[in-house]
Amino acid sequence: MKPASPTRSCQVLRWPGDGRPRRVRDELAVEEPLEVQVDTQPVVVTMRTPGHDDELAAGFLLSEGLIKRREDILKIAPHLRNAAGNVLDVFLAADVEVDFARLTRHVFASSSCGLCGKATIDSVHGHFPAVKSRLTVSRRVLLSLPARLRQHQAVFERTGGLHAAAVFDGRGRVVVLREDVGRHNAVDKTLGYALLQGLIPLEQHILMVSGRASFEILQKALAARIPVVASVSAPSSLAVQFAVESGQTLIGFLREDHMNIYSKPQRVTGTC
Amino acid sequence: MKPASPTRSCQVLRWPGDGRPRRVRDELAVEEPLEVQVDTQPVVVTMRTPGHDDELAAGFLLSEGLIKRREDILKIAPHLRNAAGNVLDVFLAADVEVDFARLTRHVFASSSCGLCGKATIDSVHGHFPAVKSRLTVSRRVLLSLPARLRQHQAVFERTGGLHAAAVFDGRGRVVVLREDVGRHNAVDKTLGYALLQGLIPLEQHILMVSGRASFEILQKALAARIPVVASVSAPSSLAVQFAVESGQTLIGFLREDHMNIYSKPQRVTGTC
Repeated sequence: MKPASPTRSCQVLRWPGDGRPRRVRDELAVEEPLEVQVDTQPVVVTMRTPGHDDELAAGFLLSEGLIKRREDILKIAPHLRNAAGNVLDVFLAADVEVDFARLTRHVFASSSCGLCGKATIDSVHGHFPAVKSRLTVSRRVLLSLPARLRQHQAVFERTGGLHAAAVFDGRGRVVVLREDVGRHNAVDKTLGYALLQGLIPLEQHILMVSGRASFEILQKALAARIPVVASVSAPSSLAVQFAVESGQTLIGFLREDHMNIYSKPQRVTGTC
Repeated sequence: MKPASPTRSCQVLRWPGDGRPRRVRDELAVEEPLEVQVDTQPVVVTMRTPGHDDELAAGFLLSEGLIKRREDILKIAPHLRNAAGNVLDVFLAADVEVDFARLTRHVFASSSCGLCGKATIDSVHGHFPAVKSRLTVSRRVLLSLPARLRQHQAVFERTGGLHAAAVFDGRGRVVVLREDVGRHNAVDKTLGYALLQGLIPLEQHILMVSGRASFEILQKALAARIPVVASVSAPSSLAVQFAVESGQTLIGFLREDHMNIYSKPQRVTGTC
């Protein structure tokens, strides 16, 4: 199997507004399909940046509520018949029950009360109860996170094309940072790392994402029991509603000198 | 049914780095689930910003290769039993054959040659051949698109939380612009608008997206026969590979004073 590389070189015609076009070499963020099979049954195909695929699979299964701890996974290995390394086999412990039908729906649907944001949240809470972590984080630590995220974003600097997600501890130290062309994949990889390292539940930790905070990002954080989620950009309405009802602290527009707190501000400490 | 609103007001604790936190009202981009049913069978649930749902459904079905023209759709209507307006019924013409199994796989998979980027591209080309449009676009028109996109981005200004996609004609005039919390949804809405207006194939048009260009964005453009795709940010490796093999012109990092051309530069005209 060829080693996974997160970037690929290509030739590009660079054309400044006031100059002549010229051919230069450029680095692209690699995007390739990955299929995850659970006990030989395909459950998802995602377009991802190769690398840390075992973490991606583990994080995805955690986020979907299929597994809860390291011991639920017997083995993760590349599928023997796929030479490109884009199919991954996950074998689960015998006592893990898999609802394949729900997995392929790609959503926690609640048919009883109709499809809406509230029903979607209630359905997720049937799998993952609200967090009750007593973690507090100082304002100073939070304001330092964007710089730490960028500092560790190795690939983005070269391609401009990757999303980043990172888990920090309560003092702002990086536990893990992953980059991917897919926002959700980057988050799944960080959570998968934590699961494979036996660090779940992450009740004293912060999840930070480089882009926006959607409902699904908050759901993934809740699955890993993360009480504080921060994003560089805006949250959606459903992300805010979800965070409020899940007891999560949601911070948006987190910059060096500014933050918006959308829910549970009691976890943020520090005087002015 | 309540009217769809793309934004929702909420209270937020705004905390500048050197000042005191204060409670202010803020506008959020709305995110709600939408289920699309085709001939009463659910085919997808997507988290979207409400509004133009009929276009989203039509564009999705076009992108997935299920339909090709306006006449393939008999009727699109809100599902009667969902008061929240989050379920949409699409009824297709009798001669449209639907492969429901393929739809739920969410990918054009090719089992014969294994899962990889090349196989994925080949599989898409089995449904949508390469474009052969003779469209040329002047460099000046292209450089003017980012400003035009922003000018029409009504909601983003208020929330900072929406992706935008727009179809322009060859002279840079906006045909349609849509915003959504989901990048793919924004593209589907613009293509769905074009389909419902009878404008497909869009062989003389440009698709522009506010973020990055992924494989899936290029696939959607190809389904609508769009020969030029431009993005404000970086393309992925598979997007470039796909554009090269599809005869599409792919432009990245398109700004007022700069562009990178990744494929088929012959379509871009203009001296320096």
